[in-house]
Amino acid sequence: MDKITRLKEILEKNRAYQHAMTILSWDLETEAPVNAAVSISKTLGTLSELSYLTLVNDEVKDIVYGLNFDELNEIDKKLVLNLKKDIFDKMSKIPVDVYSKYSELSTISTQKWGEAKRSNNLEVYAPYLEEIIRYNKEFIKYRGYNGHPYNLLLSDYENELTVEIVDEFFKNIKDELTPFIKEVITKKREELKDIKARFLSKSYPIDKQKKLSKEISEILRFDYNSGVIKESEHPFTTNTSNKDVRITTHYYENDPLSAIYSTIHETGHALYEQQILNVYQDNFLGGGVSMGIHESQSRIFENMFCKNDSFTKSLYNLMDKYFGMDITLDEFKLLLNEVNASLIRVEADELTYPIHVMIRYELEKEIFSDLERKENAEDIAKKWADKYEEYLSVRPMTYSEGILQDVHWSQGSFGYFSSYALGSAYSAQIYNAMEKDIDISKELENNEFSNINSWLKEKLHQYGSFKDPKDLILNATGEEFSPKYYVDYLKNKFSKIYEVEVK
Amino acid sequence: MDKITRLKEILEKNRAYQHAMTILSWDLETEAPVNAAVSISKTLGTLSELSYLTLVNDEVKDIVYGLNFDELNEIDKKLVLNLKKDIFDKMSKIPVDVYSKYSELSTISTQKWGEAKRSNNLEVYAPYLEEIIRYNKEFIKYRGYNGHPYNLLLSDYENELTVEIVDEFFKNIKDELTPFIKEVITKKREELKDIKARFLSKSYPIDKQKKLSKEISEILRFDYNSGVIKESEHPFTTNTSNKDVRITTHYYENDPLSAIYSTIHETGHALYEQQILNVYQDNFLGGGVSMGIHESQSRIFENMFCKNDSFTKSLYNLMDKYFGMDITLDEFKLLLNEVNASLIRVEADELTYPIHVMIRYELEKEIFSDLERKENAEDIAKKWADKYEEYLSVRPMTYSEGILQDVHWSQGSFGYFSSYALGSAYSAQIYNAMEKDIDISKELENNEFSNINSWLKEKLHQYGSFKDPKDLILNATGEEFSPKYYVDYLKNKFSKIYEVEVK
Repeated sequence: MDKITRLKEILEKNRAYQHAMTILSWDLETEAPVNAAVSISKTLGTLSELSYLTLVNDEVKDIVYGLNFDELNEIDKKLVLNLKKDIFDKMSKIPVDVYSKYSELSTISTQKWGEAKRSNNLEVYAPYLEEIIRYNKEFIKYRGYNGHPYNLLLSDYENELTVEIVDEFFKNIKDELTPFIKEVITKKREELKDIKARFLSKSYPIDKQKKLSKEISEILRFDYNSGVIKESEHPFTTNTSNKDVRITTHYYENDPLSAIYSTIHETGHALYEQQILNVYQDNFLGGGVSMGIHESQSRIFENMFCKNDSFTKSLYNLMDKYFGMDITLDEFKLLLNEVNASLIRVEADELTYPIHVMIRYELEKEIFSDLERKENAEDIAKKWADKYEEYLSVRPMTYSEGILQDVHWSQGSFGYFSSYALGSAYSAQIYNAMEKDIDISKELENNEFSNINSWLKEKLHQYGSFKDPKDLILNATGEEFSPKYYVDYLKNKFSKIYEVEVK
Repeated sequence: MDKITRLKEILEKNRAYQHAMTILSWDLETEAPVNAAVSISKTLGTLSELSYLTLVNDEVKDIVYGLNFDELNEIDKKLVLNLKKDIFDKMSKIPVDVYSKYSELSTISTQKWGEAKRSNNLEVYAPYLEEIIRYNKEFIKYRGYNGHPYNLLLSDYENELTVEIVDEFFKNIKDELTPFIKEVITKKREELKDIKARFLSKSYPIDKQKKLSKEISEILRFDYNSGVIKESEHPFTTNTSNKDVRITTHYYENDPLSAIYSTIHETGHALYEQQILNVYQDNFLGGGVSMGIHESQSRIFENMFCKNDSFTKSLYNLMDKYFGMDITLDEFKLLLNEVNASLIRVEADELTYPIHVMIRYELEKEIFSDLERKENAEDIAKKWADKYEEYLSVRPMTYSEGILQDVHWSQGSFGYFSSYALGSAYSAQIYNAMEKDIDISKELENNEFSNINSWLKEKLHQYGSFKDPKDLILNATGEEFSPKYYVDYLKNKFSKIYEVEVK
């Protein structure tokens, strides 16, 4: 057997273990009984150890470093490069027992986080969060880093991302958007209050919401033969291949827009996964290439396509059919684009959203600036509150609407948040490029996503992890990433809606 | 590390792999998208190979055969005995590549069976069925057998069961029940026809059925902290431990009794699993001991408790509350105990049920009487139809209501069906013993299952796989298994309802 064939045989075993872990986690999030959590976390620990040992060993190392690189085709070249980066620059630096203990810890920690959030009790979760942070600091030391230690975590989610790049990005956001936001949030307050009072006082039966969400995901061309939509506390997307992509949503009886837009957001993620070509999927280059690119796809659907005037008109008609609407179309459009200085990131509007991300970025950067310092959850919670007060003039009065609102830290996902803001910025640049090829408004007016999806498939989705984020953006938009499209887009859109002059 | 500790460390790894396989199968049955089936079957194949290699190796063999048996406590003794039987008398005889290929085949075969059943097309499934049978014949040869080759398969589901015992059991059923059934099915025909016409012509909204099923499972004391109820094409129970027991049901808009009684049946299975003591669960003796004992628990709930006059009265009131009832209580009681010569086993009444099982037993015994003969699915389907005509005077006109009705063969579960009839017979004997300690009718009148469940826990459930079926029956009833309770129970019950004289 030649080396590359043997390598793929090993990777196929690892695919099976990862597949099992993904479904076990999905099960844990969506339906496992509470008493099953301990046993699921043990099983995940065992499987992650197994996965580690399957990849991190001398045989794989010998193959990866012993291959004649020039003889490989382009796909296998990329596969080998990814393995070097993900396994030998990352995974293999961490001892197997540490790796497996950490995997168990993060499952339990996520459970504890849920408990803490539900009961607004930081104490039950604090020791887990502190331990998760401690592990991640250890990991950085094991792995080594250049410049700021936090660079390592940033680049785990977006290749080559550094604090310098993100600092610059958020400086731009802060300088350009903060004064603009402060002005916007003083406008149309009474009008919005009145619209919301009428819209939210009604009951929107959950059964009907489910049917509507399904209808919308079908309009967006989510493929139910290769996907599942289900409920969970917090909406998310997970996948085991391009043929099995799962999204969740959460229904609130008085607020149908929550489920509708989280379904649209997750469908954006899902379409990216479902449109990856089999040739990449079957050669272990399936799966979206980075969190930033992934988020660009969820946000382009959520905000750019589905809060677009052309689409909102047909959404309004759909909702009227399901529930009967007590507000006008113009009121509905304003409601969808309400700007608020609020506490909860996932409920934030498009304009203030990057500020929420910036706060998390600043906190994480500070946490990981000193790898020897023991962190204290209570202190972080206080800094969290201070920053909300500083940037958005609101202060969380409970842990649940402050530090406990997001699941990420409980899973050890530090460095993840920045990719959310980056994704939004990518999406503005991608939308701008797409407009040159497609009359997007016309497509959206007709609820027609086939041309839009084909464009995304051709330019981005098909490649899976074959092309890096940088190349993808260049490939799709004809130029390198630039945050200016994002800031321009936001200012342009919201200055019109709120009749604010752009400086 | 001493030998028994090391053994348990290995078994803990295997538990994790089995856990993952159970959840993957559950996922496949209940919600995975159709395009995911191939990848799930590959993953199951990989994990079953891994499980095999974890258990079947020299280290485990050396431990199991090198232990000083006399030094072990009772629990560890039983654990070692089970391992000898399940691994070294069974699994280790089959080569690993055959074992893993078979595991993949049976997953695909189950998919094909579903397709075939839905489209009434035997052809798409026939080659898989024939291949599954061929594998099982090979397995018998690998493993060796005493007497009839089919004995080996029977004893996989019920320790020490042989064709002699089952032949004798069914001879008794055939002699005692066949003439009795022939008489019963001539009685009260017009009355039942009229009741059914009224009962089934109504619509019973599925949402309400779901709520009712949940309420009933709560009355029966299903523990939702350690369990899940969901939907699937065919109701079943699966579990990964006493803390994670999952059952499914299927709702039909015009026939609420189908979902109600399948929920009750599966809840019986689930209670058995949920009431196993942690000391056995944690020492790898969790899980019901045999299919026969398991079925005795589902059937004692389905038939003996929940078709008992005392319970049906409160069920009638519940249903009236949910749907409004257009038939009287007496009519409802008769409807629940309708006896029919029908084609579908899972819809069969309590009295004709063992005949359905007997037909499958006779077919399987014939199939496995010759290990060299290649079987033909079409021939088996014809024999199936002939036997229904012979014993029940009905003949399936489609494959879907004949050979394609049951999932078992597609999964290679030959030898399983007999345990269904045996379970019913156990349940009659258990009920008889329970009546000496508890006034069952009084408990059921009050919808009170705590004493009943405690009795079952003490006498049967708590032991998991620690006690063998024979000992359990002796322990619970004070005597060895005897089929006379079953035949007496059926004749006694149905002679009263149908006013037929018992000969």
